[in-house]
Amino acid sequence: MKIIAIQGVEGSNHHIVANTFFKHNFTLDKCMSFDALVDSLLTRKSEIGVMALENSIAGSIIPNYALIDSNNLHIIGEHYLKISMNFMALKGQKIENITEVYSHPMALLQCKNYFKQYPHIKLIEDKDTAEVAERIQKNQLKGIAALASKQAAEIFDLEILAADIQTIQNNATRFVIVQTSNSVISKEEINKASLKFELDHKRGSLAAVLNVLSDCKLNLTKIQSLPRIETPWKYSFFVDVTFDAYDNYDKAKSIMQIMAEDFKILGEYKNGRI
Amino acid sequence: MKIIAIQGVEGSNHHIVANTFFKHNFTLDKCMSFDALVDSLLTRKSEIGVMALENSIAGSIIPNYALIDSNNLHIIGEHYLKISMNFMALKGQKIENITEVYSHPMALLQCKNYFKQYPHIKLIEDKDTAEVAERIQKNQLKGIAALASKQAAEIFDLEILAADIQTIQNNATRFVIVQTSNSVISKEEINKASLKFELDHKRGSLAAVLNVLSDCKLNLTKIQSLPRIETPWKYSFFVDVTFDAYDNYDKAKSIMQIMAEDFKILGEYKNGRI
Repeated sequence: MKIIAIQGVEGSNHHIVANTFFKHNFTLDKCMSFDALVDSLLTRKSEIGVMALENSIAGSIIPNYALIDSNNLHIIGEHYLKISMNFMALKGQKIENITEVYSHPMALLQCKNYFKQYPHIKLIEDKDTAEVAERIQKNQLKGIAALASKQAAEIFDLEILAADIQTIQNNATRFVIVQTSNSVISKEEINKASLKFELDHKRGSLAAVLNVLSDCKLNLTKIQSLPRIETPWKYSFFVDVTFDAYDNYDKAKSIMQIMAEDFKILGEYKNGRI
Repeated sequence: MKIIAIQGVEGSNHHIVANTFFKHNFTLDKCMSFDALVDSLLTRKSEIGVMALENSIAGSIIPNYALIDSNNLHIIGEHYLKISMNFMALKGQKIENITEVYSHPMALLQCKNYFKQYPHIKLIEDKDTAEVAERIQKNQLKGIAALASKQAAEIFDLEILAADIQTIQNNATRFVIVQTSNSVISKEEINKASLKFELDHKRGSLAAVLNVLSDCKLNLTKIQSLPRIETPWKYSFFVDVTFDAYDNYDKAKSIMQIMAEDFKILGEYKNGRI
């Protein structure tokens, strides 16, 4: 059975993604940070990692891009999860009993509008959404609530005081499936790729690269520039493209290898957006 | 005297930027979140805000882009601050006495490599860097350390146990100066602009816009796409451009207004990069 490293515990969004992507057929390595998750892969403790990469509200999780890039991980798949945030506490607790809510900073950000009506409740940042739910049950914490998935409420036997309290209902997070070695996905299945390249700070250089992508019939679904820290006026670009024909993508790749510096394929995989 | 809203307390990086940009000639409104900072501007409690917008390690602070955009704030200036992180505690404390370090998540991220040699020290996320320094002094907290600026150590009379412990020494954070109304900077002084526009998910549409920028002799210093949450397959782009002649920028603006949807100027200002 595959060992899959996730961030967080059972009931976390990472766990939900692992369940959906791998149909419950795996053992879990629960990591309390993304660094620990990468260590788990590099030391062969686990074979596959599930990693949040961007969110429709908070944008890219840049440190995770850096982890994938610097450790030469391969993206072999992606999954978009509609995020549902639920306000939960020990059974019998009412909203007026709650004085503190602990959750991941991203979850707090997504729900902060809801809590404007309860100024007596303090929002406190924590490492993981579901881990708080686990802690509340384990230590029978009264007056404390978690913001986590419905699955977490079920697993840790908590009562949902309010469901789906995230401000933006269409909030989705994109997760990637990563490995230390590249997988063998058939070319027919591949219709998306994540690329990284560098360009000089020269007028028009990015436009020239994007013209190539466009000429090769690739769709750009994401672009992000990051200044190269040690090299002023040089930029790294992280770009995601989708395509109908692998041959077109192949053509773009060979041109990109010539045009851009340090051209690197972070992964070739099946588009997770339905 | 101007009232300037910052995130954090005296000695915070926001305070250092305010001092550099406004030459100490102001009263401070210390806000404990970026939301509170924006409220301070909108309610006219303060006239000017200083806001971190991106970091060379962690990338863009997307929620701050959203705050600027949705509240129609104007960027009237920018400042790049080289970040110095210092490990500090009450005078007389030694590294072996320290069991917990509290700081802003970004600061912890920047220094986590340093702490690998001290596995007995727990890193705990907090709201602000300098505010922890203030708290340590006020409550005479032993065994607790802060990661903050040298100025914070001086203001709150703490001892620096280790200086400049950030992993990447060239780490800079970009701060913007924001107002509710546009300022009157003369066109001669303006050589940078922050723009926002939307495009359909159509092959080549971004390349076409970048070609215009390039034809008008604008340099792209930053680009970032964000999916529009409520509108699938539509993207918002945040772009920064620099230019030598305002006339060229003016020409690009008038073309962009036709080509892109919801074209918006977030600010026109003087390039802070020397």
